[in-house]
Amino acid sequence: MASTFPQPLDAALVPRFAGLPTFMRLPAVTNFSDVDVALVGVPWDGGTTNRAGARHGPREIRNMSSLMRKVHHVSRIAPYDLLRVGDVGDAPVNPIDLLDCLKQIEQFYASIFRAGVIPISAGGDHLVTLPIFRAIAKERPVGMVHFDAHSDTNDTYFGNNPYTHGTPFRRAIEEGLLDPKRTVQIGIRGSVYSAEDLDFAEAAGIRVIHMEEFADLGVAATIAEARRVVGTEPTYVSFDVDALDPSFAPGTGTPEIGGITTLEAQHMVRGLRGLNLIGADVVEVAPPFDQGGSTALVGATMMFELLCVIAEAHAQRRTIGAERSASVE
Amino acid sequence: MASTFPQPLDAALVPRFAGLPTFMRLPAVTNFSDVDVALVGVPWDGGTTNRAGARHGPREIRNMSSLMRKVHHVSRIAPYDLLRVGDVGDAPVNPIDLLDCLKQIEQFYASIFRAGVIPISAGGDHLVTLPIFRAIAKERPVGMVHFDAHSDTNDTYFGNNPYTHGTPFRRAIEEGLLDPKRTVQIGIRGSVYSAEDLDFAEAAGIRVIHMEEFADLGVAATIAEARRVVGTEPTYVSFDVDALDPSFAPGTGTPEIGGITTLEAQHMVRGLRGLNLIGADVVEVAPPFDQGGSTALVGATMMFELLCVIAEAHAQRRTIGAERSASVE
Amino acid sequence: MASTFPQPLDAALVPRFAGLPTFMRLPAVTNFSDVDVALVGVPWDGGTTNRAGARHGPREIRNMSSLMRKVHHVSRIAPYDLLRVGDVGDAPVNPIDLLDCLKQIEQFYASIFRAGVIPISAGGDHLVTLPIFRAIAKERPVGMVHFDAHSDTNDTYFGNNPYTHGTPFRRAIEEGLLDPKRTVQIGIRGSVYSAEDLDFAEAAGIRVIHMEEFADLGVAATIAEARRVVGTEPTYVSFDVDALDPSFAPGTGTPEIGGITTLEAQHMVRGLRGLNLIGADVVEVAPPFDQGGSTALVGATMMFELLCVIAEAHAQRRTIGAERSASVE
Amino acid sequence: MASTFPQPLDAALVPRFAGLPTFMRLPAVTNFSDVDVALVGVPWDGGTTNRAGARHGPREIRNMSSLMRKVHHVSRIAPYDLLRVGDVGDAPVNPIDLLDCLKQIEQFYASIFRAGVIPISAGGDHLVTLPIFRAIAKERPVGMVHFDAHSDTNDTYFGNNPYTHGTPFRRAIEEGLLDPKRTVQIGIRGSVYSAEDLDFAEAAGIRVIHMEEFADLGVAATIAEARRVVGTEPTYVSFDVDALDPSFAPGTGTPEIGGITTLEAQHMVRGLRGLNLIGADVVEVAPPFDQGGSTALVGATMMFELLCVIAEAHAQRRTIGAERSASVE
Amino acid sequence: MASTFPQPLDAALVPRFAGLPTFMRLPAVTNFSDVDVALVGVPWDGGTTNRAGARHGPREIRNMSSLMRKVHHVSRIAPYDLLRVGDVGDAPVNPIDLLDCLKQIEQFYASIFRAGVIPISAGGDHLVTLPIFRAIAKERPVGMVHFDAHSDTNDTYFGNNPYTHGTPFRRAIEEGLLDPKRTVQIGIRGSVYSAEDLDFAEAAGIRVIHMEEFADLGVAATIAEARRVVGTEPTYVSFDVDALDPSFAPGTGTPEIGGITTLEAQHMVRGLRGLNLIGADVVEVAPPFDQGGSTALVGATMMFELLCVIAEAHAQRRTIGAERSASVE
Amino acid sequence: MASTFPQPLDAALVPRFAGLPTFMRLPAVTNFSDVDVALVGVPWDGGTTNRAGARHGPREIRNMSSLMRKVHHVSRIAPYDLLRVGDVGDAPVNPIDLLDCLKQIEQFYASIFRAGVIPISAGGDHLVTLPIFRAIAKERPVGMVHFDAHSDTNDTYFGNNPYTHGTPFRRAIEEGLLDPKRTVQIGIRGSVYSAEDLDFAEAAGIRVIHMEEFADLGVAATIAEARRVVGTEPTYVSFDVDALDPSFAPGTGTPEIGGITTLEAQHMVRGLRGLNLIGADVVEVAPPFDQGGSTALVGATMMFELLCVIAEAHAQRRTIGAERSASVE
Repeated sequence: MASTFPQPLDAALVPRFAGLPTFMRLPAVTNFSDVDVALVGVPWDGGTTNRAGARHGPREIRNMSSLMRKVHHVSRIAPYDLLRVGDVGDAPVNPIDLLDCLKQIEQFYASIFRAGVIPISAGGDHLVTLPIFRAIAKERPVGMVHFDAHSDTNDTYFGNNPYTHGTPFRRAIEEGLLDPKRTVQIGIRGSVYSAEDLDFAEAAGIRVIHMEEFADLGVAATIAEARRVVGTEPTYVSFDVDALDPSFAPGTGTPEIGGITTLEAQHMVRGLRGLNLIGADVVEVAPPFDQGGSTALVGATMMFELLCVIAEAHAQRRTIGAERSASVE
Repeated sequence: MASTFPQPLDAALVPRFAGLPTFMRLPAVTNFSDVDVALVGVPWDGGTTNRAGARHGPREIRNMSSLMRKVHHVSRIAPYDLLRVGDVGDAPVNPIDLLDCLKQIEQFYASIFRAGVIPISAGGDHLVTLPIFRAIAKERPVGMVHFDAHSDTNDTYFGNNPYTHGTPFRRAIEEGLLDPKRTVQIGIRGSVYSAEDLDFAEAAGIRVIHMEEFADLGVAATIAEARRVVGTEPTYVSFDVDALDPSFAPGTGTPEIGGITTLEAQHMVRGLRGLNLIGADVVEVAPPFDQGGSTALVGATMMFELLCVIAEAHAQRRTIGAERSASVE
Repeated sequence: MASTFPQPLDAALVPRFAGLPTFMRLPAVTNFSDVDVALVGVPWDGGTTNRAGARHGPREIRNMSSLMRKVHHVSRIAPYDLLRVGDVGDAPVNPIDLLDCLKQIEQFYASIFRAGVIPISAGGDHLVTLPIFRAIAKERPVGMVHFDAHSDTNDTYFGNNPYTHGTPFRRAIEEGLLDPKRTVQIGIRGSVYSAEDLDFAEAAGIRVIHMEEFADLGVAATIAEARRVVGTEPTYVSFDVDALDPSFAPGTGTPEIGGITTLEAQHMVRGLRGLNLIGADVVEVAPPFDQGGSTALVGATMMFELLCVIAEAHAQRRTIGAERSASVE
Repeated sequence: MASTFPQPLDAALVPRFAGLPTFMRLPAVTNFSDVDVALVGVPWDGGTTNRAGARHGPREIRNMSSLMRKVHHVSRIAPYDLLRVGDVGDAPVNPIDLLDCLKQIEQFYASIFRAGVIPISAGGDHLVTLPIFRAIAKERPVGMVHFDAHSDTNDTYFGNNPYTHGTPFRRAIEEGLLDPKRTVQIGIRGSVYSAEDLDFAEAAGIRVIHMEEFADLGVAATIAEARRVVGTEPTYVSFDVDALDPSFAPGTGTPEIGGITTLEAQHMVRGLRGLNLIGADVVEVAPPFDQGGSTALVGATMMFELLCVIAEAHAQRRTIGAERSASVE
Repeated sequence: MASTFPQPLDAALVPRFAGLPTFMRLPAVTNFSDVDVALVGVPWDGGTTNRAGARHGPREIRNMSSLMRKVHHVSRIAPYDLLRVGDVGDAPVNPIDLLDCLKQIEQFYASIFRAGVIPISAGGDHLVTLPIFRAIAKERPVGMVHFDAHSDTNDTYFGNNPYTHGTPFRRAIEEGLLDPKRTVQIGIRGSVYSAEDLDFAEAAGIRVIHMEEFADLGVAATIAEARRVVGTEPTYVSFDVDALDPSFAPGTGTPEIGGITTLEAQHMVRGLRGLNLIGADVVEVAPPFDQGGSTALVGATMMFELLCVIAEAHAQRRTIGAERSASVE
Repeated sequence: MASTFPQPLDAALVPRFAGLPTFMRLPAVTNFSDVDVALVGVPWDGGTTNRAGARHGPREIRNMSSLMRKVHHVSRIAPYDLLRVGDVGDAPVNPIDLLDCLKQIEQFYASIFRAGVIPISAGGDHLVTLPIFRAIAKERPVGMVHFDAHSDTNDTYFGNNPYTHGTPFRRAIEEGLLDPKRTVQIGIRGSVYSAEDLDFAEAAGIRVIHMEEFADLGVAATIAEARRVVGTEPTYVSFDVDALDPSFAPGTGTPEIGGITTLEAQHMVRGLRGLNLIGADVVEVAPPFDQGGSTALVGATMMFELLCVIAEAHAQRRTIGAERSASVE
């Protein structure tokens, strides 16, 4: 049956530079019900307070995803044999009107959610995660594994504006979409506006693993801690590329030196196998500040890493579900 | 008395790469009443519908303005001997809230206007001209010499949003700030959304000189026509760098091939000597899309060209005024 | 009925940075019979003797074609109202095996040709025109308006290799695909290997308009001469971006300084209105050597210019045909 | 009283891309006595033997320092609450006359020194440290923590020229400005001209920690060793960005692969807390060879790291001094 | 006698930016018998399946090798005092005809081999190693230490083409040139086309050390394992720069994130001291995708690292040989 | 006999990306007497007052000169059949000591001059022309056709320093090396430090053709005027790439917008046929500020254009000389 699942173009037949650059060279899908996992672009950076450009992220991530192949080299997960995966295109956006755009993104994801599809998204700045949460966590708050240089739990900017890419998770907690006690932030660093900047996060119960603690703990212990925090309940993974050191991901709006390496990031994502993952995103890839597509390549690879982990867990759940149904009968 | 006028740093004493990059290496001025002409930055691109980045324009134009010297090589105008010119910094902006930002910019320019100071501004995207007009043309509509690839008289975008960098001059006409009959647009070109796109401009009475007509007319006839259109009444000059061919100005959001050359642009600005110029801007320099600062250099040079023309005219008006006062006595 | 023709995405609804970058943001079409004009990519540079990279041309031209709109600003031609136009994807290519690739490209275009569809192609290096000719000019040789810095009528390279991007038109003439007497080359320049380099072209009867002659003649006389040469018979337009000066088109494998401007090129293509055009290509856009996409933007714009001219002529022919059919009945 | 200390512009009011780019967005100060710590630019690369460009370092470091905030995220040091810090502009330089320039820089720093102000400087190439030492170490030699890929203790170049960026510390030792026994060099690596290249440094008693030894020791042991070497006497910190691997700091004149990471560098600078630091510099940021400002961002961040350590130590000394004065009374 | 060996230009007399950029600034040599070690360029990327450009590798590696000096800073090996080393220029190549080119390269290296000279080569894509093996391993298969992100043991591409940069080592094993049991691959990673992709390598007996195993083992254990595998028999070292993380080596055709660092690579090459090395190459440096020459600098440095190890071992063998001869007499 | 003249590598045998990049791919020559025309590099920018980098000019011009072929496409001049031309390498330079460097360059050119060889040089900044003049114009002053944006006849900088790239021709006139009455400057433009800046040039009798006058005159009249000024006496051609508009030559230290095109420049150089040319240079190509080698390509092409004109004139003089000798006998 797997043979009928959508497959990427075969690079030994169609060179990687040929063809329309969909995510992973998968078919472009217009009907959500045709897939189990939807790869989605959210080309919007309306929440960016300094260096915009993440609006161009989905296109360049799609381009560089041409370099991805079909099977994970470590886990041997073959996501396209496990599930139906497709590129469902971009969420509708509005580069001029922030509130309207938040609403449009939310509605788009609500449709995905209603179709029972897991979204893996390419931002866009980090504010895009808020309307995604509004769509998929309305009924009950999600937990989150959050890779980032910044906590993104500031309050307001520029005269009490509550919605920027520095504020989504304070809003999500306030709105009951994100469970701070089941949230872990990894890689946080960089100078802060005031010593109180992280008070909200900590008071709310978020487990903040600063870069310095991560350097001490190492990958394995960090992942163990992350798994402990999020537990077995529904969990979202949000990967801001500025979690990475700028030498790995220069193309981003708010780079902070002294970050994690791509290899560490890959190991951490692989460490999420078996969690109850209901969605993920890779955000803040800003092509106008990128160097030769290197950040877009990182973005594409992290999407593939996330896809493998999610596909495996999803397929297992389904198998278990099927077995249960069968055993019930 | 000229000796007390602010002067740029002397490049034979302080190398051009040294010192804070104010516009033209002039003193930073905080009190509007200390200058006759204010060089202003408007670091905002909230009206940009596609490739943002003009928010970074003022900083890079300031950088490249280090290459400017003190006297115009053709006209021999020495603006800093004629008038007090200074860098008054940036207008306050809000990258998140469009309407708030329009208001803040307007208020800043209203203060400049009340101080009797002529502003020469570096954008920012072209929407910034609208709040400038609201500040300086409230009492009576201005005429305009407008260099651009686009008429910027579209109506709405993305669901009836009236304020984008494609709409400022329709709004300005509707608000009675811009006199379309005293407006000339030079360099208009590029494919259009529909054959009706330019109907508003033409119906309103704007004199649109498409690139193709400009190529036929040549510089001298174009300038003659522009002078005829704007006449002797108060006139504003708005220079969108995308009027230039992208080979001269790659760093802009909406490039259109087949544009005018910098030499043609310089000749046309020089052709505005003696007009009743009350302000000018250079907009749409978008550094993230620039190549080695070339567009910022063009922006800085066009600001200097505009400054020379404005300084001469302003000094003449003042002299005439002084003579009139004297003869009255 | 025009309302059912495929239309580009509306940039006032879906921003230009959003969505899959098909040519002109048109629908991706898989069935040739669904279009009258096919926009095709040929991502192959196997004939390149020095700086490869044109294999990446179609993808980047598609990207920058997002900046195109729907109606020509001078001619007012609205191609998508006249004809069915679509992006039919890329010809199959083989980056390792030159002869196999020539065959695959030929077969792809033969299918297009059999469907009665006019191809407008984005290369690829200039060798791609040869298999296109083999597909569409098998029955009778075509004439050609050829914009280029190089005549591309050399004989062999690297030990008698007959197929490189410096030889396609000698081969095409030898194979009876191209009528040299109905061929005009515009913009030829640059140092040559030997004084005899252009002997073949001239002996064959090609009308070679060197850059220097073009500079003397000007656009209008050059176009008049081109029209005289190709006459009313079926004619192909091949636009090598190195015809342009490298300041306009840096992203190409064999740049030659002292070339034509984009405005001149646009005027010349517009001058081809009404000719019996059966196909066109834009070749030698090499993104690894490009600067910020400027050459890809030129490529996309020239494709749009060619599309407008071809659409108008094609629609006229059809109308005439229809009228004739009608009058016959 | 802290409330009267100069503060950076508030990024939640004035976006980081707005305003003149002073170091850390602090006020530009013209009177040395207004500050306790002076941030200084030295835009000069007259000692560069190969790839010049560090003359442009201060301007670009100022630009990227817009990304710095106010409080250190690990140490919670808030330097602007502890001390008066300001941007005192650039030292006077002469790009044509090396000896004159050395003299001018020395005089500028002598004035800073006489005012009792601690300088933290942005070079410029590494030769700029020599005139700084001449100004501040005339009375007694300083110790130094020196991060670099090169020992910079060569003798002469190009026909007995004693002053290049490869020789400052041999000169400083010869002139009695630098105490080699209290000097530690960290990160030294790269092929050498001859096996004797490091003999001077070792014979003089410098503690040279090659990259390879650093990789073995790790950050903590390296810092312990550095603290042991410099002891409690007055110490200067000189940070050449080529100590870092070129993947972190490509914009420099003499890159050597296999260097330290930014995170390691940050940890080491943080390890200098409590030392008797009397000045510091960050040198060899060469913007023409940089990639998207990444090296300038590193330079700005390292300046902030140094500032935090120096501010804390300086404030402590002052408190202790005040307490002593008080207890004496 | 060492004094008569060829030496690099002295950078303290002739600046590094001056002079023709031969490898390491050594003399250009035309007679193979004048050297013991030949530095060779192979400017060819005819086997590249996606992003070509490695054909420009030798020229840019030569450029950046100007930054190399004469003595290794750790091992103190002074290769130019031990052996005669020279730049013998580029192998003849054919960018159009793959099979002809393989033959030409083979013949060139056969001449080098017959002259008893050890080649250290700069590619070119990885297919160039195959004809080198055909020249130097005809008589008996070599062992190999292979640094790479990819095993390069795929079978065919694009319709049964056996020769691409993804297949050289399967061909070499099939042709009896490479002993898989004496072959170790280090750094292998990245998604694969199918789970069976590495079956050939493992079935053949290659010791594959994936990136993940390398991260666990560390440098020392990896090198110990590599030495165990290749033993004391003749061994070749092939260094594909994509073994490195793209942050260190962005300029390559098939980057895979999560790779090894340059420092690790240097340590591993240094760990090969004393092996029976008969040749080496550094391949896949693709300048059109490089950033400011950083990958070419890595390539040049790795060539120098390899040269030092090979020179030492070769000189030792010769000394031993001479001693043996002497003792025999 | 021509067959024994040195020839460039044949690009149909050795691809242009292969081989050492000598000027025009000619043999590297060490004995001046082996050539009639010497192509020389002068990698020095010690006179640069702002953006250094021209020291890297010769290397990159050599690189891009790989794109030159053997015969001029308009004049059909085949320089390598007329004369012996070779790459004699770089003049010795000193990046640290200006006066020493001026002396070394002078001595190098004095040797060339004594050997009766015509030098065509690639700078370096424009100060390099002064020591060339000291070598070749000692006996009698030369005339000059000077393409530049700047007159380069300023007096002193930075505290009475007489030698910068802004002063060479004032010095040359003062030293009696350059005949101002036989000097024409073409393309002069850009803002000036004071209205008196050009007084020296004009008072000395230089014919200054500002950009604006050139635009009026056109190429033909400008060349006629230049020929009138320099007459039939020995004349030098100095081509500063900043004469060109920065869109054609971005890689230069002091760009001024509104410059001449490459096509105009080529036509003007071709207009110098038959003059008594004794040397030429192309200066101020600054690769760190270049874009993809475009300025270096311009530099290489202008050297080829100059070579053709000089070779023809030189060969004619020799023929005439030989005929005269013959007729005397």
